Amino acid sequence: MKKQDLMTLLGVVAGIILLLWGMSLGGSKLKIFYDFPSIIITGFGSFCSLLINYPFREVSKLGSIIIESFKELKSSKIDMIERFSSLSKKARREGLLSLEDEVSNIEDDYLKKGLQMVIDGIEPETIREIMELEIGEMEKRHKIGIDMLKSWAAYAPAFGMIGTLIGLIQMLDGLDDSSKIASGMAVALITTFYGAVMANLIFTPMAAKLALRSEKESGLNEMLLEGILAIQSGVNPRIVEEKLICYLSPEERKKYGEVTKLQEGVA
Amino acid sequence: MKKQDLMTLLGVVAGIILLLWGMSLGGSKLKIFYDFPSIIITGFGSFCSLLINYPFREVSKLGSIIIESFKELKSSKIDMIERFSSLSKKARREGLLSLEDEVSNIEDDYLKKGLQMVIDGIEPETIREIMELEIGEMEKRHKIGIDMLKSWAAYAPAFGMIGTLIGLIQMLDGLDDSSKIASGMAVALITTFYGAVMANLIFTPMAAKLALRSEKESGLNEMLLEGILAIQSGVNPRIVEEKLICYLSPEERKKYGEVTKLQEGVA
Amino acid sequence: MKKQDLMTLLGVVAGIILLLWGMSLGGSKLKIFYDFPSIIITGFGSFCSLLINYPFREVSKLGSIIIESFKELKSSKIDMIERFSSLSKKARREGLLSLEDEVSNIEDDYLKKGLQMVIDGIEPETIREIMELEIGEMEKRHKIGIDMLKSWAAYAPAFGMIGTLIGLIQMLDGLDDSSKIASGMAVALITTFYGAVMANLIFTPMAAKLALRSEKESGLNEMLLEGILAIQSGVNPRIVEEKLICYLSPEERKKYGEVTKLQEGVA
Amino acid sequence: MKKQDLMTLLGVVAGIILLLWGMSLGGSKLKIFYDFPSIIITGFGSFCSLLINYPFREVSKLGSIIIESFKELKSSKIDMIERFSSLSKKARREGLLSLEDEVSNIEDDYLKKGLQMVIDGIEPETIREIMELEIGEMEKRHKIGIDMLKSWAAYAPAFGMIGTLIGLIQMLDGLDDSSKIASGMAVALITTFYGAVMANLIFTPMAAKLALRSEKESGLNEMLLEGILAIQSGVNPRIVEEKLICYLSPEERKKYGEVTKLQEGVA
Amino acid sequence: MKKQDLMTLLGVVAGIILLLWGMSLGGSKLKIFYDFPSIIITGFGSFCSLLINYPFREVSKLGSIIIESFKELKSSKIDMIERFSSLSKKARREGLLSLEDEVSNIEDDYLKKGLQMVIDGIEPETIREIMELEIGEMEKRHKIGIDMLKSWAAYAPAFGMIGTLIGLIQMLDGLDDSSKIASGMAVALITTFYGAVMANLIFTPMAAKLALRSEKESGLNEMLLEGILAIQSGVNPRIVEEKLICYLSPEERKKYGEVTKLQEGVA
Repeated sequence: MKKQDLMTLLGVVAGIILLLWGMSLGGSKLKIFYDFPSIIITGFGSFCSLLINYPFREVSKLGSIIIESFKELKSSKIDMIERFSSLSKKARREGLLSLEDEVSNIEDDYLKKGLQMVIDGIEPETIREIMELEIGEMEKRHKIGIDMLKSWAAYAPAFGMIGTLIGLIQMLDGLDDSSKIASGMAVALITTFYGAVMANLIFTPMAAKLALRSEKESGLNEMLLEGILAIQSGVNPRIVEEKLICYLSPEERKKYGEVTKLQEGVA
Repeated sequence: MKKQDLMTLLGVVAGIILLLWGMSLGGSKLKIFYDFPSIIITGFGSFCSLLINYPFREVSKLGSIIIESFKELKSSKIDMIERFSSLSKKARREGLLSLEDEVSNIEDDYLKKGLQMVIDGIEPETIREIMELEIGEMEKRHKIGIDMLKSWAAYAPAFGMIGTLIGLIQMLDGLDDSSKIASGMAVALITTFYGAVMANLIFTPMAAKLALRSEKESGLNEMLLEGILAIQSGVNPRIVEEKLICYLSPEERKKYGEVTKLQEGVA
Repeated sequence: MKKQDLMTLLGVVAGIILLLWGMSLGGSKLKIFYDFPSIIITGFGSFCSLLINYPFREVSKLGSIIIESFKELKSSKIDMIERFSSLSKKARREGLLSLEDEVSNIEDDYLKKGLQMVIDGIEPETIREIMELEIGEMEKRHKIGIDMLKSWAAYAPAFGMIGTLIGLIQMLDGLDDSSKIASGMAVALITTFYGAVMANLIFTPMAAKLALRSEKESGLNEMLLEGILAIQSGVNPRIVEEKLICYLSPEERKKYGEVTKLQEGVA
Repeated sequence: MKKQDLMTLLGVVAGIILLLWGMSLGGSKLKIFYDFPSIIITGFGSFCSLLINYPFREVSKLGSIIIESFKELKSSKIDMIERFSSLSKKARREGLLSLEDEVSNIEDDYLKKGLQMVIDGIEPETIREIMELEIGEMEKRHKIGIDMLKSWAAYAPAFGMIGTLIGLIQMLDGLDDSSKIASGMAVALITTFYGAVMANLIFTPMAAKLALRSEKESGLNEMLLEGILAIQSGVNPRIVEEKLICYLSPEERKKYGEVTKLQEGVA
Repeated sequence: MKKQDLMTLLGVVAGIILLLWGMSLGGSKLKIFYDFPSIIITGFGSFCSLLINYPFREVSKLGSIIIESFKELKSSKIDMIERFSSLSKKARREGLLSLEDEVSNIEDDYLKKGLQMVIDGIEPETIREIMELEIGEMEKRHKIGIDMLKSWAAYAPAFGMIGTLIGLIQMLDGLDDSSKIASGMAVALITTFYGAVMANLIFTPMAAKLALRSEKESGLNEMLLEGILAIQSGVNPRIVEEKLICYLSPEERKKYGEVTKLQEGVA
């Protein structure tokens, strides 16, 4: 587990503690915020809409998608550039077939597949076409998961409002003594509260984080594709590096500069 | 009928049961949530806006569109890749004309039309142009149905609010004794409640599901088109397969791998 | 006048009757929903914003745009394909110049202009460029009308809310006896009610219908352009037909199939 | 000053009179709608957000942008086509250099620059590139002005709501006798009222009008660019005219037809 | 520090003073607007959502991003055009290698990298590809910062509403004497107030300003790229200048005209 994951978890935990603290202020008891039927209507009602909205196959992945949002991409752009730098030099020196040994050590499926195609002598246009298709299809698959969380973030407050309307209608209709209005109103508002918290503390930020991750992964894979094609074309390793460095942020470039210097010092 | 369909139906049924349960809580009777004029104003009023919004020809298809959202696409990408694998081998061995016999067994209209054009010797650019036009026009037709449900999902809460305004104005104006305010208010809120349920439990998720389905069908047809053109161009069956596999999700690939291995074992 | 037009009219009339019925329920009189100043503030106030928003030349067309939304396109895709089929055969048999006689019988301005250019021997790229420019400019002109209705649909509820705020401020300020609050509140809400009805029953659906119509007309003209260029290029009439059939929906194809069969039977 | 300008002004004036009339109804005095601090909070508060949002250089142009929205484009497409028709004939007869005299009479900077480049013998691709860059940069500059008004239209109601919240909190907190609630509430609502009027009667329609104007100007310049390039290429003046006529609306075409006929009659 | 920065700061300060003034009106004390738990719930609660939404690496840059929004771009387009004018003349006279000396004096990293590549004799397509990649990646990096502020601007009012709901539920539930409703309501509304101010006076305008800045920087870099490529291609310096002038606004052109005239006078 990495530092970033802890931060996501921290965000969820801190947000919940914060709300619990806010709820316990002013002398009222926390349990007035707990209402089982309200949880069911807001949480499960919006889940029913999700069931209609998405094929079951996708809905059943929701759990792993949520867990996914607590993780961070392992691949580092800097490592990748270094790897390409060495691959590119090796390919120039010993030919493309010499990459065969390296491929077996590579964990990243995308890079592996691309290099294998280079070794197999497939034409660059075909490689680009297939690898871009891979990126596009991966983005589509990610998008469904992200959209599911976004949909839930939209349905939750809607069902919160539906629950509040149910509560209000019951309260207003069954009303005899006006002294109970206030407490009935409080119960009615609880579903709106649940819906707002679910949407704003859980589903929306998680969906956004996964969207960022997906974008980053696509960006990384585009970088890998450029690198793979550059190796195949036999371009000067310096230009390969120059091009890949564009994908780095200024901080990463600085860090990359240090790493490279260090290595050169060692070498 | 398939599992996924049951899930859609389950979503609708579970959502309605859930709401009925919520409505029956707190000692109030369910019938306070039933108000015939409110149903008419919310449901039929928003339908009147639909009648203005869309040509009658489209509105008359609404029933079948809603039924459609309870079904699932039959075609499986895995089956298609296998079929292409065998078609591609046959075409290489026995020539494109040998596909004539296969075409008659194909159920999918899109694939059938495409292969027939290959057999008829029509040029690849023309085939691509015509087949992409087919996809585009199909998407446009689907979009109208989806947009109709989305429009209904927008009009229903609007008419819910209009109904509530009517109720409020009547209540506030005709008011003599303030004891009736609460119950009049309850009736007024019922149209808002109906509108919110119609939009969030029925129309929005159905529209979204149909949109996903349409996207999936387009994706499948794009895959078929790539396959058809690959067969025509006489590319190596391995590359055809490699390309089509990109359209599979990681799980599907795994499954496809197993299926293929099994067959090879059998062969 | 056609069936579809009646449906649009029916939508408006049925929606209004429905609302009148809803308003007359509960023993209150319809006249409590009539308030002349409220009509002026909501309807004319939002019209003032339109006057600022659009040049007067466009605003003055609003009447004819609204009338337009009660009509339906006359051109039928099926008729067009048949016409192209026969034009294409004639052009192949007797040469492009033989189309001169046919052109004078054509009502559709777009088709006429296109065929005339073919007869005049203008190059295909120039024809495509000019005819696509025509479609683009027509879409732009339609869009302004549609946007005007959409803007009105946005301004009307805004002025409804402004009217309600005026009413509320007057009521709250001038208030002596609290017994008048309710009735003052009712009057204040009437502008919101008017704004919601104008937007949701009239302007939004009309704008959407005109947008659909404009899209359909563009689609038809794109089909005509493909047909015109196919005739000029002297392509096989079967392929012209095949291509144009892509623009038909499955039902239209079925119908077209029947029509063609019938004719062949006759022939 | 032209007719259209008067209409814009009329829209603003009529809208304000309308609101004043509405405010004076029901026996209340107009001055209850005047509250100096509310004006400051809504108007100047939203202006502070604008100051943060945009560089001062842009904000300082706001005055001239607002004045701009009361004006109308002078250039007429019909005049331009006639001018091109005559320029095109002259260029064909006497060569491109003969246009030198004409250029000095042209007021429109865009047209002038384009023709000058033609006379200077610059290549068509370079001219297209530079002139399209001009259009793009002009659109970007216009867009900032339009966006500023749109931002103001968004900030004004937000600060209206902030003002209302301030008023409500003051009223609810300082409350001793409930008789003052109503009048305090009225004052609190005034900022919301101001914000809604500013957004819906002033800023939103003005921004939309300027957007339309900018689009029209781009369209005119695209037409000029086509005309300039057509003259340079030495295309037949009839085709130049035919192409430029596509940019006219049906009414303008009719009018253009009459003008041309008249001239031919004179000639 | 420049004039524009002061304006941004002025906007924030003036907005806050304005609100403080508004809050102190009507005889109420400012301290009723201060509620520590409300600040925590609105400010820190929305920050928790940010922590979930973005990787920690990005969130930790928030401080410097906010500071960034108080600054202004230093590079001036006019200076750049003059520099290109002189570089272009030098390159024509003394060859591309003569630019080597100039490069070391250039502060702008983008321009420096581009010119260095020209001197290194890298092909124009490669330079364009790499330099456009640089712009694209810079835009992506900026976009994350801008999106973070936008997300905060969305979460802040949401947590304001959540805080208000907590307050309302506590107030309605714990209620014995109705005299405390008003003051409890005031406290409940304070979080909504905080959320609205944070979103509309701070985060939204800052995000918008940074977006404008990023756009401007991209525009400047696109201009630099055009200039770099023009120098490499050895185009006539007059045309280089003509093209770059398109990127100037009318005022800048006027100013540039004066500057140039002045220099020519001096020369």
